[in-house]
Amino acid sequence: MTTQTDITWIAADWGTTNLRVWALSDTGEILIHRGSDRGMGKLAPAEFEPALLDLIEDILPTRGEVPIMVCGMAGSRQGWAEAPYKSVPCPPPSIADATRVKTADPRLDVHILPGLKQLKPADVMRGEETQIAGFLADQPVFSGTLCLPGTHTKWVKLKSGVVERFRTCMTGETFALYRHRSVLRHGLSESEFDTGAFKNAVLCVLQDPKVFASELFGIRAASLVAGQTPTEATGRLSGLLIGAELASIRDEFDLADVAILGSSKIAGTYHAALECLGQDARLLDAESITLRGLTLAFSCYARETS
Amino acid sequence: MTTQTDITWIAADWGTTNLRVWALSDTGEILIHRGSDRGMGKLAPAEFEPALLDLIEDILPTRGEVPIMVCGMAGSRQGWAEAPYKSVPCPPPSIADATRVKTADPRLDVHILPGLKQLKPADVMRGEETQIAGFLADQPVFSGTLCLPGTHTKWVKLKSGVVERFRTCMTGETFALYRHRSVLRHGLSESEFDTGAFKNAVLCVLQDPKVFASELFGIRAASLVAGQTPTEATGRLSGLLIGAELASIRDEFDLADVAILGSSKIAGTYHAALECLGQDARLLDAESITLRGLTLAFSCYARETS
Repeated sequence: MTTQTDITWIAADWGTTNLRVWALSDTGEILIHRGSDRGMGKLAPAEFEPALLDLIEDILPTRGEVPIMVCGMAGSRQGWAEAPYKSVPCPPPSIADATRVKTADPRLDVHILPGLKQLKPADVMRGEETQIAGFLADQPVFSGTLCLPGTHTKWVKLKSGVVERFRTCMTGETFALYRHRSVLRHGLSESEFDTGAFKNAVLCVLQDPKVFASELFGIRAASLVAGQTPTEATGRLSGLLIGAELASIRDEFDLADVAILGSSKIAGTYHAALECLGQDARLLDAESITLRGLTLAFSCYARETS
Repeated sequence: MTTQTDITWIAADWGTTNLRVWALSDTGEILIHRGSDRGMGKLAPAEFEPALLDLIEDILPTRGEVPIMVCGMAGSRQGWAEAPYKSVPCPPPSIADATRVKTADPRLDVHILPGLKQLKPADVMRGEETQIAGFLADQPVFSGTLCLPGTHTKWVKLKSGVVERFRTCMTGETFALYRHRSVLRHGLSESEFDTGAFKNAVLCVLQDPKVFASELFGIRAASLVAGQTPTEATGRLSGLLIGAELASIRDEFDLADVAILGSSKIAGTYHAALECLGQDARLLDAESITLRGLTLAFSCYARETS
């Protein structure tokens, strides 16, 4: 049974929508893994500490402080405490770049890792930089492209441990908007999609990116007058959006050796889209890589303070 | 003062969002013009007649029936009564193509004009076909391009009174989704936009349509790290979306002589976008053209039944 004294430190991935924490032993064993939906988007700055305590207070030691390594939107200007961006090209941020947060509860020793920014073209990330650090921990000299799919998918060019540049596409968010809020919702399926329709749409936009805007409403129209099924419509919407994304980044990022950090359904969709280009890609588990990145930060911290 | 006996017929433009009616005299004078927000999207089939009566019952004659000419989404399958699409190429539908609706109230003589469909590429319209009829009433041999901007903008190729083909872009709906529901909303201005940023974005996408998907998140990022103002961000979003639309239709539609049916702000935005291409365009008042189209239908009906 886990006791409070077993816990050496806590890792927290605090995004816009969710907060996930892991309590770890001194050997790196995950003792507790919990989550809540109190993401940065729902919290005022003063509400972060109570939200964190709600999730972990029962596992805090009765005395002494616990190091807590945080990545993600909690470090944004509207978050808990701003952790100013580092500028690329640079290696992923380390504990030396983190912002120490003043807390009311003396048991909390909170460090927020900063995100990365790029000035030209303008771009930002918060949270993914820690995944990149976790990825590089296992393959420090990797040179190639990382794809971190999600609400805002990141494409990252890595060279010998340095983030050279990156680009964000809001494909996941756009898909959700069209699916749930637009006229297209009437003809879409609940979750399944037709793979053939998906691939045709990916290739259609890759071959001729300018068709994108008029193809979108075509999804609705084909449901009304051409017998298109809901699963075909959903596949086509997904394919048009990911096709437009690949078209927009393929000149800037080498797609011949892509590592996709994500084991979720969306990661599989990107994998299938890259297959349309004749490219294979590796799928790596995002959550364990996030924890790996936060563990790196803690290890450096423990070394410095020991 | 208008009396009930002055009213010869009623015109109704019944879209997804709104219902607008005009009561007209035998000389075509507009006696009453009213609207409500009870669009097709909010009504079950049985609710259309009560919604119409709520708006016009006080002006109906005490006996005899009043012809009511309806265009728009009220004629869709989920509307009041389905008015099956006509297929292009064809002239805009006339009263002979209309669906007569059975009503409980004997004073209502309701005719719904059908929309148009296109099989390849699949596309549909409901309501705009009546505007096209109204436009052609004044220039029956016009050959060129009509642009009907709105939530779903229509581009129409006309040749000697025939709708040869058309294309729909859901640019207005997409703009509203990004503006109110996406992460981009944080950096946008309330209503004003910067014209320079708009034009730059239109040209950026027209010159290289494939950049569209990654430029979108660039709007958010430039607000965060490059000092972009809210009016610049709004202009850029509008410009990227209309630029992508023009890129997708410019090969299919002659943009050298475009008539834009719409006097609203959105019509002005399309006019400005065409100027980026060095094209001038005529702006015509959409509402009076809709009424002109419905009047045409009534005139034919009155001729047939007299």
